[in-house]
Amino acid sequence: MRVGILTGGGDCPGLNAVIRAVVRKAERHYGYQVIGFLDGWRGVVEDDWVGLNVESCRGLLPKGGTVLGTSRHTPFNLDNGMARAGDTMHKHDLDALIAIGGEGTLSCASEVSELGFNVIGVPKTIDNDVGCTERTFGFDTAVAVATEAIDRLHTTAESHARVMFVEVMGRNVGHIAIWAGIAGGATYTLVPEEPFDLDELCAALLRRKARGRYASIVVVAEGARPQPGTLEIAEPPVDAYGHKRLGGIASVIAQEVEQRTNLETRVTILGHVQRGGSPTPFDRVLATRFGVAAIDAAHAKQFGQMVALRGGQIELVALKDATANLKPVNSEMLEVAHAFFA
Amino acid sequence: MRVGILTGGGDCPGLNAVIRAVVRKAERHYGYQVIGFLDGWRGVVEDDWVGLNVESCRGLLPKGGTVLGTSRHTPFNLDNGMARAGDTMHKHDLDALIAIGGEGTLSCASEVSELGFNVIGVPKTIDNDVGCTERTFGFDTAVAVATEAIDRLHTTAESHARVMFVEVMGRNVGHIAIWAGIAGGATYTLVPEEPFDLDELCAALLRRKARGRYASIVVVAEGARPQPGTLEIAEPPVDAYGHKRLGGIASVIAQEVEQRTNLETRVTILGHVQRGGSPTPFDRVLATRFGVAAIDAAHAKQFGQMVALRGGQIELVALKDATANLKPVNSEMLEVAHAFFA
Amino acid sequence: MRVGILTGGGDCPGLNAVIRAVVRKAERHYGYQVIGFLDGWRGVVEDDWVGLNVESCRGLLPKGGTVLGTSRHTPFNLDNGMARAGDTMHKHDLDALIAIGGEGTLSCASEVSELGFNVIGVPKTIDNDVGCTERTFGFDTAVAVATEAIDRLHTTAESHARVMFVEVMGRNVGHIAIWAGIAGGATYTLVPEEPFDLDELCAALLRRKARGRYASIVVVAEGARPQPGTLEIAEPPVDAYGHKRLGGIASVIAQEVEQRTNLETRVTILGHVQRGGSPTPFDRVLATRFGVAAIDAAHAKQFGQMVALRGGQIELVALKDATANLKPVNSEMLEVAHAFFA
Amino acid sequence: MRVGILTGGGDCPGLNAVIRAVVRKAERHYGYQVIGFLDGWRGVVEDDWVGLNVESCRGLLPKGGTVLGTSRHTPFNLDNGMARAGDTMHKHDLDALIAIGGEGTLSCASEVSELGFNVIGVPKTIDNDVGCTERTFGFDTAVAVATEAIDRLHTTAESHARVMFVEVMGRNVGHIAIWAGIAGGATYTLVPEEPFDLDELCAALLRRKARGRYASIVVVAEGARPQPGTLEIAEPPVDAYGHKRLGGIASVIAQEVEQRTNLETRVTILGHVQRGGSPTPFDRVLATRFGVAAIDAAHAKQFGQMVALRGGQIELVALKDATANLKPVNSEMLEVAHAFFA
Repeated sequence: MRVGILTGGGDCPGLNAVIRAVVRKAERHYGYQVIGFLDGWRGVVEDDWVGLNVESCRGLLPKGGTVLGTSRHTPFNLDNGMARAGDTMHKHDLDALIAIGGEGTLSCASEVSELGFNVIGVPKTIDNDVGCTERTFGFDTAVAVATEAIDRLHTTAESHARVMFVEVMGRNVGHIAIWAGIAGGATYTLVPEEPFDLDELCAALLRRKARGRYASIVVVAEGARPQPGTLEIAEPPVDAYGHKRLGGIASVIAQEVEQRTNLETRVTILGHVQRGGSPTPFDRVLATRFGVAAIDAAHAKQFGQMVALRGGQIELVALKDATANLKPVNSEMLEVAHAFFA
Repeated sequence: MRVGILTGGGDCPGLNAVIRAVVRKAERHYGYQVIGFLDGWRGVVEDDWVGLNVESCRGLLPKGGTVLGTSRHTPFNLDNGMARAGDTMHKHDLDALIAIGGEGTLSCASEVSELGFNVIGVPKTIDNDVGCTERTFGFDTAVAVATEAIDRLHTTAESHARVMFVEVMGRNVGHIAIWAGIAGGATYTLVPEEPFDLDELCAALLRRKARGRYASIVVVAEGARPQPGTLEIAEPPVDAYGHKRLGGIASVIAQEVEQRTNLETRVTILGHVQRGGSPTPFDRVLATRFGVAAIDAAHAKQFGQMVALRGGQIELVALKDATANLKPVNSEMLEVAHAFFA
Repeated sequence: MRVGILTGGGDCPGLNAVIRAVVRKAERHYGYQVIGFLDGWRGVVEDDWVGLNVESCRGLLPKGGTVLGTSRHTPFNLDNGMARAGDTMHKHDLDALIAIGGEGTLSCASEVSELGFNVIGVPKTIDNDVGCTERTFGFDTAVAVATEAIDRLHTTAESHARVMFVEVMGRNVGHIAIWAGIAGGATYTLVPEEPFDLDELCAALLRRKARGRYASIVVVAEGARPQPGTLEIAEPPVDAYGHKRLGGIASVIAQEVEQRTNLETRVTILGHVQRGGSPTPFDRVLATRFGVAAIDAAHAKQFGQMVALRGGQIELVALKDATANLKPVNSEMLEVAHAFFA
Repeated sequence: MRVGILTGGGDCPGLNAVIRAVVRKAERHYGYQVIGFLDGWRGVVEDDWVGLNVESCRGLLPKGGTVLGTSRHTPFNLDNGMARAGDTMHKHDLDALIAIGGEGTLSCASEVSELGFNVIGVPKTIDNDVGCTERTFGFDTAVAVATEAIDRLHTTAESHARVMFVEVMGRNVGHIAIWAGIAGGATYTLVPEEPFDLDELCAALLRRKARGRYASIVVVAEGARPQPGTLEIAEPPVDAYGHKRLGGIASVIAQEVEQRTNLETRVTILGHVQRGGSPTPFDRVLATRFGVAAIDAAHAKQFGQMVALRGGQIELVALKDATANLKPVNSEMLEVAHAFFA
């Protein structure tokens, strides 16, 4: 059997661990050959690839990012993409293609699967928003980075009696914000799932101040938005130089809070450090389990499926189901977070 | 409502986070009072306690260990224990008692529950061996400590072309060993669930050497034991000074491997660092969710139950069921580990 | 003897370790009493203080920030400040005042010393820019935070073949940038000591790209400025919401580099995380040595002096000399950094 | 110019960073060629080597250990070693040899230098015991590992009210123990420089207990020894399996303390994790500066010299002077540690 593998979308700690696991079990256990396509689907369309074996994957487990490179290209946004991708599959005589990625990459995998490709999906995203799986790798690492930052900000907040706003990733869902907020002991956390009420936030911060000398930490998912009518937001916020890459909603909120409450505020936008670096042990294990399960699924010809963590076990779910909807933060987690709001 | 809380058994990162969460939701949400018994069940029997409130729990979230102290005493191994414990419950007019602990503490909780106490259990153990819950807090932190140590040992192993043996905790089950072994890229992992074959281990290490200049890491759970007849073990192993606290099976194996293979070996016994220090974000979140769920359960008078993580959700399970059997490493995890054995 | 202590200026990891060391040696060795003034010089002027003893300092060693609070007030920027400060010293019968701070706090200490106060200075600043001492505590921690961020950005830079710009603290000097740049393996580092040539930077990045598929990291001290005439900078840069707290020079440069080279760029502004959190072991030791030396100096009535690290030893230097000039990065360090520029 | 490089003695974080720095400046700045000898002096004697260039050193900066391997062989303990080493130098037409190592490797370097080899020394040792330099790289990392372990042990010690003994490296000097003891807030620290009085240690631990519920941490350098007549020690201590590699003095002391004081004790022997893993930023910078200075010294034909850190600057000192005596902990550091003894 010959198997291709690709990594698509934003990079994420654990991608290399999946690649290594696929290659290891493919070569040593099944005797299969694996090739890696460069820069996600682009490599398939343009037949750009490298050979992979146990030896070339040595040392990959703890290494962040992806040695295969990644991009947001798909067969559907490249010229004549499907045909060329098909040619590549044919040329290399590939029996299966393992696609590791988030919502975009997996939706594409689902579509090409329905068009007849033998695809297996592996969910990755630091946002943890892929459906049908309790966890994606990369999320635990992102939460760890955000929590460490919050831990650090506590002491500086307290020394100066300030309100520190921390903006974390999460355009559509607030998993990172809620987890890091709970783990970091945040005073308040704003997520896309719950449009916020600025008056309530200000009141909470003032209540807290009234109780003593304490500083506050407010965690803000970059996709958090106010309840209609409570705060005018120039949408989307842009930075001083005209590009909107970095989010910035936390800065808008901080400035408004400072004006309304007279509390001193500071803003930290964590940015790309959340998606880089060596994966946590949890993410290394999850990525490795996903990789092993993906090549097992290829061996069992379970195409059109995605590996998933459910009830602590690795299972297969239909790619179509997994990509139907983003997975929001559930009500239990929101309520736990609320219990600690000032 | 008045609620008592205690922490029993070995200490574990996240105990303080549970205490803080219970107190926070009890005081702010329900308006309940909480008192903390010192040194586990001893404090209940001997009526030794401190008052707890949101203010006194400030800063506890990231702090390892337990501010309430812990011990292995129970009402059943202290003089007239049940009667005195009953007196304490009565004297303080306690409506519920939240017992945080591992197998010993929870079994005791199950028994006193059947004797009429209003008990709620919260599972903690770095070993992750409590039944009916996918995870206990403290485990993720222990795996993180062990994996960081393995990461460090890789470079020294490679510089000297040695086989490094790392002994981790796990008397009855090998969860820490298997997870840290997978996360750390171990060459081999020995766990209680699978009596090991020393010949096979030696053969694997020599196979690996035959492939090149590579060093090896062997992770050993302290409870790992050889297949009958394959290795004589003076049971239990003792250190040079006559006490057997630290395990030491890794040293026995290393010495035997060195004699049989002529490979240079070194041994590291991780010991107590695995159970100390600030909990990982995952453990802080899980401990906080458990604490919130425990006080919710007390409010709902769901006595004789234990909070548990199942399918990513917090649920209640009967203490009797949870303490019926230790939870071993399952076959999927063992197979994933095997895929990377030399 | 009775001794006062204060912490001024921006907060910094290690302040609490100094306070603890002063109190420990004062109480246990000399039998002196120590009081802590709140919010730096403001506490002295307004007679706002707390008593300190070994017991109340328990647990402070690893804790970032300052339990005394800090501010940028001085007797010279508060109404009738010197007279009120003198009243406070008299009222408490203080024999010495230990002032822990950076350039502002220590300059103030130097001045009030000349006006007759018995002051001892302890240098702190994450910027490492205080003269007459090889190191200030807080710097090692800041470099560690910045280096960890750079380590993380490497993998995401490589996965996407991007140029990542990282802005670190350093308004007037580039110690953090140069150390983190060398430790993190930066492609280029821009510091205030060397006005940069944007053409050269662009050429270097393109040279590197021409050699292969490699991504780049550019470290930028927030005070870095271009050579006159090479880049128009709206001075000072402001963010989208009109305040200039966060620096932002890295964003200006990144945008210009992207336009000139067509390389994809991203920006991370590290901000306040650099000054928070638990101090590194080096900073804990240095802060402790400074604290011990400060109370020793008070005992020896060496007023008007500052403790300093010189040749690996703790020595006393005149406050006047130490505050005469900021300490820039020296030529050896700049040359080491240059050796690795693309 | 052609330059050889070797790494000898125990491995140490930062060795790879030196190699990378030497190669980088040699190739890019001077246009020199560098070859790396394998396993220290063995590679020179047996002409076992690899070519090194900027490309092959990519990624080495943060990587612990040494890619060249290391051993304790020298030309003086290998058959006909000097003659064969001379042949190798001649065959490769080497103008200089850079020897990175601790006391053993550098003493050898000093000797072969006097026999006419063009040698430059670079001091490495986690023990920080090389003379004429304030610091060696590897030490900061070892202290960081030991301090993190102590931080973790504090919470478990407090939860159980135990005395935790931590044995750290340091056969002849106590730098790691003193620094980690101060940084970790140890109750007591035992080092080779000060033969200890067990009665005094026991008295201190009991004094501390008398003051309250506090646990204690005692840091023990593996080379710590009692004052004559105060404690019988079977010298050297061996473990249960007959080998003495792991030290173990801490176990002897702990057992004796437990018997004399009735305090509960536990022992952790840190072992090899202290010398493995990614170097701290400080060690990466020092190693890089040493590497750059070493190739500069080779270029300047300053043979028989060792690079050293003095007064915060990199200087050259005679190998003969640097290897004359081990550098003990000085009295200032011992006194700082004493200030915190119970």
